[in-house]
Amino acid sequence: MADTTDPRLTSLAQSLPATVPFVGPEAQERARGKPFVARLGANESGFGPSPKAIAAIQNAAGIVWQYADPEAYDLRQALAVHHGIDAEHIMVGEGIDTLLGNLVRLLIAPGDAVVTSAGAYPTFNYHVTGFGGVLHSVPYAGNYEDPERLIAKANAVGAKLIYIANPDNPMGSHHDAVTLQRMISAVPDGCLLILDEAYIDLAPEGTSPYVAPQDDRVIRMRTFSKAYGLAGARVGYALGAKPLIAAFDRVRNHFCMAKLSQIAALEALQDQDWLAHVQNEVAACRDRLAAIALDNGLTPLPSATNFVTIDCGADGSFARRVLQAIGEAGIFVRMPFVTPHDRCIRVSCAPEADINAFATSLPYALKAARAAT
Amino acid sequence: MADTTDPRLTSLAQSLPATVPFVGPEAQERARGKPFVARLGANESGFGPSPKAIAAIQNAAGIVWQYADPEAYDLRQALAVHHGIDAEHIMVGEGIDTLLGNLVRLLIAPGDAVVTSAGAYPTFNYHVTGFGGVLHSVPYAGNYEDPERLIAKANAVGAKLIYIANPDNPMGSHHDAVTLQRMISAVPDGCLLILDEAYIDLAPEGTSPYVAPQDDRVIRMRTFSKAYGLAGARVGYALGAKPLIAAFDRVRNHFCMAKLSQIAALEALQDQDWLAHVQNEVAACRDRLAAIALDNGLTPLPSATNFVTIDCGADGSFARRVLQAIGEAGIFVRMPFVTPHDRCIRVSCAPEADINAFATSLPYALKAARAAT
Repeated sequence: MADTTDPRLTSLAQSLPATVPFVGPEAQERARGKPFVARLGANESGFGPSPKAIAAIQNAAGIVWQYADPEAYDLRQALAVHHGIDAEHIMVGEGIDTLLGNLVRLLIAPGDAVVTSAGAYPTFNYHVTGFGGVLHSVPYAGNYEDPERLIAKANAVGAKLIYIANPDNPMGSHHDAVTLQRMISAVPDGCLLILDEAYIDLAPEGTSPYVAPQDDRVIRMRTFSKAYGLAGARVGYALGAKPLIAAFDRVRNHFCMAKLSQIAALEALQDQDWLAHVQNEVAACRDRLAAIALDNGLTPLPSATNFVTIDCGADGSFARRVLQAIGEAGIFVRMPFVTPHDRCIRVSCAPEADINAFATSLPYALKAARAAT
Repeated sequence: MADTTDPRLTSLAQSLPATVPFVGPEAQERARGKPFVARLGANESGFGPSPKAIAAIQNAAGIVWQYADPEAYDLRQALAVHHGIDAEHIMVGEGIDTLLGNLVRLLIAPGDAVVTSAGAYPTFNYHVTGFGGVLHSVPYAGNYEDPERLIAKANAVGAKLIYIANPDNPMGSHHDAVTLQRMISAVPDGCLLILDEAYIDLAPEGTSPYVAPQDDRVIRMRTFSKAYGLAGARVGYALGAKPLIAAFDRVRNHFCMAKLSQIAALEALQDQDWLAHVQNEVAACRDRLAAIALDNGLTPLPSATNFVTIDCGADGSFARRVLQAIGEAGIFVRMPFVTPHDRCIRVSCAPEADINAFATSLPYALKAARAAT
């Protein structure tokens, strides 16, 4: 039976939970017996990728029999030009998740300390636990991750890694570049700061701190999954010092990236007009989601991302009931995992029809949630 | 500089070589300044995947903004029907490489013993070393992996894993099902046999041993990269006992698979007529490659795969010179890494034009290789 554990697993593997970080919306669709009418739960971009990226996939579909270039040379060269740095500062991987996993594997031996915020990205925690690292978390300062407290904790526990997302997920908040630069300058010796910038393309200009390419105190994570609209292609990249970037070659799965994903990401990067279009759409949608929240007596949090986190004004039980009722109305939405963030639901920006469906469902969901108390 | 090592790496990561298991043909193309005219080196299928799979990719390209189902439910259900087993016996992953990496991570702690054949799949060795396992290898028996010797070595060193590929890569040989069944019955307690069946769809009927779904002595690896022609999509799967299959959920990267890859693999699986077409093409191409070898005074080895390994009749230096000259003629071919296999070159089956190019190049390559002695 699958509920027994194979006795041949390593003691570390034996100790790991058999649970998964996120259940996909498809599993929920199977449970409810019909598809969602709107996918607003995973911060995918319903605005889609550049039409040129879609066309490139279609045109290249016939060569899917070829393995992708394990060095992702063309994409790395284009990223090097885009960022004005050498390609040796860039590692391309199958989404930030894969890069985080490789990075944890490179730096964390069993028992090593890692610092993050309580309620930050669960998949990072999954990797840390998976390689035997010891997680230490600090609370958010309200709706913001707390750089000073993260640094203080890292000093206290002798952390090898610190994780921060800027902008933040799941709260949508962000710090300015100066705050991040101050944080970087305070990273303890022997420690590495992971700056997850998955949502940076949707943040105000100047949110990303300047980091000298050779600065080995920080590694930045970027993705084509959010603003570029290629979540299903699985392409992300890390920016960092050359020795650290080179180290990924020691453990990564060199031939893991899909051929058409590399091609699509290259096209998407080169269509910055489409990116600007999506940025405008997202900005307008954030305003609309905020207005919907206010119309329903709820509090939208400011967002520097492609989602709006909405404070439902009560506790986690209440927000979970709201989420449940929205789901029953056919709309896939997620919410933060931990208290006090779990007073909120988190709604992805999307095309108008999807947001209309959310707007229609919300009053009924709130009514249902209130009736259940 | 990238040639220094980041001192924050774990001692295990510090110990790993910075080299890669395989250099891609694209790197060779960049070095020579022009593309290859034929890709015959990676056992990709130039016959391509099912046209229905290509069409499915093209039709679904517009939803590449969605993450794939992390459970790969539809594909696993289809595979369950295809194999006549429960879906809980099946783990889908981003190619066999990823599944091998996850499996090694689950079972191998630093210092644990692993047994393979000298000259067998280097990426498996890469994973074993990468997780601190200790590799023990036994020689081939001629052009065949040696099941009895693998088992004897596993007993001698107390191995936790044994690797065998059937059919074999890089020699193209195979054992019959009875031989594999005998091997499975001899797997030591506490050990797991990895039976890599990447090429099984191209082997004679009856090559794959019957394995009871719940048999936990063996895990089988299958792929869509070879006969199904989807190498660039990165889709493979493992067949094994439920507790072992369930354990993958503890360490795998749940959202790593590309959306269009799942869709393409499902279509490819359902087009068994195309598979039969490819099997016929490959069989004919093997005969042609054998004839080309004989015409040039070389010895083709029998093949149960989509490649033909050709004994060049001398030592590794000679075969490397032949390979070099074939490469200079614009044809990507690889060869086995270790002696005595490195007397051979390994040529993938492919459409007629590609094989014609190889046939044209070979006499000149042999002449060049002989002239250089």
